[in-house]
Amino acid sequence: SYSKYTYKHIALMRWIMVALIGIVTGTIAFLINVGIHYLRKLKYQEFFRVYDLTRDSGTVFLALLVIAGFNVFYSIFAGILVAIEPIAAGSGIPEIKCYLNGIRMPRVARIRTLIAKACGVLFSVAGGFLVGKEGPMIHSGAIVGAGIPQLRSFIWNKLRLPYPYFRDDKDKRDFVSCGAAAGVAAAFGAPIGGVLFSLEEGSSFWDQGLTWRSLFCAMCSTITLNLWLSGTPLVPRAKFGELDQPGLIDFGRFSNGGTDGNLWTFPYLFLFILIGAGGGLLGAWFNSLNTRLTIYRMKHVFRKNVIYKVLEVILIAMVTTVSFFILATLLGTCVPVITRTEQQFANSTRNFFCPTGVTFSTIRFNNYFNDLATLMFNSEEDSIKQLFHQDGAFTLPTLGLAFICYYFIACWTYGAGVPSGLFVPCLTIGALYGRFIITAMQTAGIPTTIDPGTFALIGAAAFLGGVVRMTVSLTVILIESTDEIEYGLPLLITLMVAKWVGDLFNEGLYDIHIEVKEIPLLGWDSPEKVDRLTATDVMNPDLKYIYPISRVGSIERLLKVTAHNAFFVVTPLSVSAEDTTSSIGVSKQSPLLYERRSIHPVHRTRLIEQRRKKEALKRKEYKEATINDDGESRGATPFSSGAEEGVQDNAFVFHGLILRSQLVELIRNRIFFDENLGVETQPPISHLKLNKDYPRFKGIYDIKLEEGERQMLMDVSLYMNPCPYTISHHAPLRRVFNLFRTMGLRHLPVIEDSGIAVGMITRHDLTHEHLHKALHAKSHHGSNDND
Amino acid sequence: SYSKYTYKHIALMRWIMVALIGIVTGTIAFLINVGIHYLRKLKYQEFFRVYDLTRDSGTVFLALLVIAGFNVFYSIFAGILVAIEPIAAGSGIPEIKCYLNGIRMPRVARIRTLIAKACGVLFSVAGGFLVGKEGPMIHSGAIVGAGIPQLRSFIWNKLRLPYPYFRDDKDKRDFVSCGAAAGVAAAFGAPIGGVLFSLEEGSSFWDQGLTWRSLFCAMCSTITLNLWLSGTPLVPRAKFGELDQPGLIDFGRFSNGGTDGNLWTFPYLFLFILIGAGGGLLGAWFNSLNTRLTIYRMKHVFRKNVIYKVLEVILIAMVTTVSFFILATLLGTCVPVITRTEQQFANSTRNFFCPTGVTFSTIRFNNYFNDLATLMFNSEEDSIKQLFHQDGAFTLPTLGLAFICYYFIACWTYGAGVPSGLFVPCLTIGALYGRFIITAMQTAGIPTTIDPGTFALIGAAAFLGGVVRMTVSLTVILIESTDEIEYGLPLLITLMVAKWVGDLFNEGLYDIHIEVKEIPLLGWDSPEKVDRLTATDVMNPDLKYIYPISRVGSIERLLKVTAHNAFFVVTPLSVSAEDTTSSIGVSKQSPLLYERRSIHPVHRTRLIEQRRKKEALKRKEYKEATINDDGESRGATPFSSGAEEGVQDNAFVFHGLILRSQLVELIRNRIFFDENLGVETQPPISHLKLNKDYPRFKGIYDIKLEEGERQMLMDVSLYMNPCPYTISHHAPLRRVFNLFRTMGLRHLPVIEDSGIAVGMITRHDLTHEHLHKALHAKSHHGSNDND
Repeated sequence: SYSKYTYKHIALMRWIMVALIGIVTGTIAFLINVGIHYLRKLKYQEFFRVYDLTRDSGTVFLALLVIAGFNVFYSIFAGILVAIEPIAAGSGIPEIKCYLNGIRMPRVARIRTLIAKACGVLFSVAGGFLVGKEGPMIHSGAIVGAGIPQLRSFIWNKLRLPYPYFRDDKDKRDFVSCGAAAGVAAAFGAPIGGVLFSLEEGSSFWDQGLTWRSLFCAMCSTITLNLWLSGTPLVPRAKFGELDQPGLIDFGRFSNGGTDGNLWTFPYLFLFILIGAGGGLLGAWFNSLNTRLTIYRMKHVFRKNVIYKVLEVILIAMVTTVSFFILATLLGTCVPVITRTEQQFANSTRNFFCPTGVTFSTIRFNNYFNDLATLMFNSEEDSIKQLFHQDGAFTLPTLGLAFICYYFIACWTYGAGVPSGLFVPCLTIGALYGRFIITAMQTAGIPTTIDPGTFALIGAAAFLGGVVRMTVSLTVILIESTDEIEYGLPLLITLMVAKWVGDLFNEGLYDIHIEVKEIPLLGWDSPEKVDRLTATDVMNPDLKYIYPISRVGSIERLLKVTAHNAFFVVTPLSVSAEDTTSSIGVSKQSPLLYERRSIHPVHRTRLIEQRRKKEALKRKEYKEATINDDGESRGATPFSSGAEEGVQDNAFVFHGLILRSQLVELIRNRIFFDENLGVETQPPISHLKLNKDYPRFKGIYDIKLEEGERQMLMDVSLYMNPCPYTISHHAPLRRVFNLFRTMGLRHLPVIEDSGIAVGMITRHDLTHEHLHKALHAKSHHGSNDND
Repeated sequence: SYSKYTYKHIALMRWIMVALIGIVTGTIAFLINVGIHYLRKLKYQEFFRVYDLTRDSGTVFLALLVIAGFNVFYSIFAGILVAIEPIAAGSGIPEIKCYLNGIRMPRVARIRTLIAKACGVLFSVAGGFLVGKEGPMIHSGAIVGAGIPQLRSFIWNKLRLPYPYFRDDKDKRDFVSCGAAAGVAAAFGAPIGGVLFSLEEGSSFWDQGLTWRSLFCAMCSTITLNLWLSGTPLVPRAKFGELDQPGLIDFGRFSNGGTDGNLWTFPYLFLFILIGAGGGLLGAWFNSLNTRLTIYRMKHVFRKNVIYKVLEVILIAMVTTVSFFILATLLGTCVPVITRTEQQFANSTRNFFCPTGVTFSTIRFNNYFNDLATLMFNSEEDSIKQLFHQDGAFTLPTLGLAFICYYFIACWTYGAGVPSGLFVPCLTIGALYGRFIITAMQTAGIPTTIDPGTFALIGAAAFLGGVVRMTVSLTVILIESTDEIEYGLPLLITLMVAKWVGDLFNEGLYDIHIEVKEIPLLGWDSPEKVDRLTATDVMNPDLKYIYPISRVGSIERLLKVTAHNAFFVVTPLSVSAEDTTSSIGVSKQSPLLYERRSIHPVHRTRLIEQRRKKEALKRKEYKEATINDDGESRGATPFSSGAEEGVQDNAFVFHGLILRSQLVELIRNRIFFDENLGVETQPPISHLKLNKDYPRFKGIYDIKLEEGERQMLMDVSLYMNPCPYTISHHAPLRRVFNLFRTMGLRHLPVIEDSGIAVGMITRHDLTHEHLHKALHAKSHHGSNDND
């Protein structure tokens, strides 16, 4: 339907769109970043002003009131935004995973969600929640990817520009891939990691064109972000146009403690493996706690009035703030600042009731800093950097206390009604864990020759791996954002050990949330145990079908009674092509598509034989479709009426697949004909026009048909997909699984050897739950057979 | 056939093998590197010793004699090694591409090839050829990947260890992927790029397990290499165990010229695009020249005595050495050394008849250096670094002259009988091109505020892109090895422009060499124009088939007469399951596999109908298979003999696919039975035993059968693949293409709606040439139809 010219045109538009997606995503990331910076700056400025005024007068609780007030105020904003658009809660990565996996996720990629998410994350991060901005940023990128190429209804239509591009699911999914890659690139300064992320979560198979585009998109996003950042005070000493900034996460350069020690040496690998295993255990427990909490929350909080959701958010903000303040005040230790690191981290140490140092220019040089306050009254990124690079010792109780606080509060926070990334809190908790171990070793007098920061990094990787069960792409992101190729091997090994240990207990947190929401995500491999299953065992044998030429009224009824998204186009086995057409009164000379694949009269004898051989064949019985037995096809058959009845029950020759949206659009556009006038009088409709309303097609209830119209006939054979991927009924499940993942399918018709449709497999049939049910049914049935 | 325990065992073995592959690859890369270093050091030491003695006495041609002697000596070694094992010539990347694409490449992955390649590249690089060591290193990694898991015949068998693992093509291909990734990681210090390389060239679809393993393998290789390197004088100031080395290619850190200028700013992007276009043109011309040369060489040099091959190599060495010496002596310019860069590049500037400076300790500080000699009497890596970072100006004539020399000599060298990487020479040529442009601009008085090194880098990318038409993975490798994320966007844009411009004229050089050798590589997309073709148009309708139970003699004859690697297992349409068995005299109670999919008696009437409807159906006629019409199946049919004859001509029901190697092994192991004793007496054989000899299966001519054995029957149904991927005869070609690429197929049976086998598609049917023939045939035929 496209001319050669249009092909090139489309390719060009694709590149332009991709560049736009990258630029907009980078800009949004920049805005989020700047917004958080100023909101947080405002909060801490006021807090420390009041703190300075009151620290000696004993009325320091006023400072607590200030910071608590700010945090509650911010949290109300975040909570309300999410209450308005509930899908903006959480990190968004599970949703993006599902979307790219090929699942229809309503509202995930709307402008409204973008606004709620991007503004919400400003307030949730600035409000002192233990959440990261990276997940929401990836989600924002994905929404930008979904939105920009579809701007039609907002812009082009009003400007009356012709813009007939990208009106199908595959294109949209590709753009969302690019957007997600751009989001990752902006969030972590890791464009290659971004491409891998979208490849891993999204692509069925390696698509070179898509890979180029997403790399380009990720690069545009990184460069845009860096360009904007270079012009702001967020990056010290940079002039606008100097582009050499990292992404939003910057782990800083690892030194080796100024001594001749190494970053790591081989014997330490064993210790790293132990840390990885510990991270896996801690992560698994985190996931288990969070799972129970999430289920409880879904039952008891989210079902009730939306106000409870906001109240919970405020409660979390209060608890976080108050506990941090009290702990830091009462239990923080004053630690002397070591000169070497003073310069680099002067801005982010907090002296909080410790002996003050000098203030030079605007930088406060502390002779002592409160280690707990330094961890708790900072952005999480600064806390991580402190743990990675601060040579001044954190004391063991401080690290332990901070770890426990962070662990449980972060666990409580993830899943509440605020936009909340998981990456940064996990890194913080893990860095505390790693730093705790090295400090414990030092306290116990075990000599170590390597940098304490290395342990913090390894601990961070271990815990992150234990919670999200790092995929390849996340590993690459971590390696890329560390920017030290030297850490590649230990990071990789730690992450893998953590993943393996964690997998003994439960799944990654993203996957758990997907499962809790009962979304049929397809994993990477078919589960091992189900090797014995075949397509027949998992398919839904309840065929929903129409004939190539059907009455409009019966199609309408079918659409109203069922919720299926795809329907078989079939002809009954016992009726030959000519018979079918005559039985519904169409003139014989009509050019029916399915004559090309005409049903062979030899099939007619099939049913008679079939009955005779029923035991030998042991074929599954198929439920009768509920809709189409309204007599339309009860034409004369050349065989006995007994055979005919069998036909109605059993056997339909498969011709193609047609989507619900196509049927609705065909009816809405009145693409049907009067049976007295013949099929030639059916008006044609172009592919473009049929997809005009993508992705918001009308429902069947939006269409009003007159009784006369219901009596008309529709020839769907021109619009169906005449050769979708199909699978043989005795194909092993692994094959089914591969086809689904690889080709990104939603519906897979199961066809018998001789072209008889016997069932349909959808994603829901491939969920763990369903597969185990099928397996159980089979082994039960099998043992019966053997009796 | 595997128990649960064995599964885990295999998974563990897989990880161990992968780690070993990484370690060995890293070690080989290290050895190559050290070998080249010392061979080259020896050469230049002697050369400069003689040069120092003779430079003032006018007998400096003695120095020329020394260096020419060394180079000829080295080139003889390289030439002879390649003469012994011809597949060790060239970069090896085309061969690895083909191997990973799923093509059987004889001798590519043998130990012998590894030795020839690894030793050959030592001498070719040290011998002053304009070749790189990176391609051969990747090839070496791939061979290690293929070899280590298959060490059985060398080691395990002699130690009598049980080692029944990894005996099939898929496993082997996966290990080769990992090895190639390790090779890239070692060569470029780019483990992520390595993973992408093997994913892009090898994987059909994203396989998470494989990706983890290849990342691990690449990391092991990088770390191993760095560990070894840290202990040698190759890396100054490093102690053994300090791992922070880059890979073998290190571009050095880009400064911004010590001024306040930037590495690049946005307006320069337009200039970079122009440079990219120029690089594309230069690359396309390079490819075109090299193609003509390669074809000429294949016809006139390689066909003759092997001595000509070695002589050509020696000639290239002579010409390179002499022309470089004369040019550097006569036309080199003396350029003052700028202090800032002196320290860093003191070792690699050459003063060559320029005023000498002081020698301090062992480092020679030149006040002046000969710019042409600096480029020509250095390793190419050092030349590249000079071009990237040397602030002292290279003069315009020098750059131009060096460019012309390098361009033509490199073009001549690639494809000659030495192991020769393409990456580094292209970078050198491109860096000369980029540096030439900035120098020309500076000479013309156009002010530039950015670092000249940036232009050299962009030029290098442009030319490399123009020659090899960079894929995504190579782009990532370049970005990774530059180690400046800032250069990501300009590099990406330049590479893409160069690729697009070059693609207007010809293909990438690797692909050209693959095409010249007539290897049926499957590209990324099916060619655009062939959208109209269907499976029927491209398939080979000449069925080579056997029956589920066949006479051993007829199988033997089939194997001897044909060269096919896979055979259909079919039954004739007109004979039902019982009839077939009875016709070959097997007792009816035998448990034949194909009863599961029994041929339905309804098919019997098919042929009668078929004849009647021949015009309506317009089905293709299939050639009769030449072998199996030896009367085995002429059993009684319930219909007319006319119908039976039709059956012999036309219609076979498809049951499965069996490989040549399986048939040969079955015969060799005497897996057949006497027809008087029944199928139960056929001895069983395990999957493991059947694949014992993988990958070097016996041929059919290695087996001696007695006449009595030829009369026996074989039931292949237990060993065939009962449900391979198949495709419907009217599926569009794009579908065929996707299945082949995605699932890594070699054979795709084409099946009609009712289970009738109608043809086979292999890779050879999907080559450009064949597709265009099919397209031509179809349009010709189509126009006839319309008449």
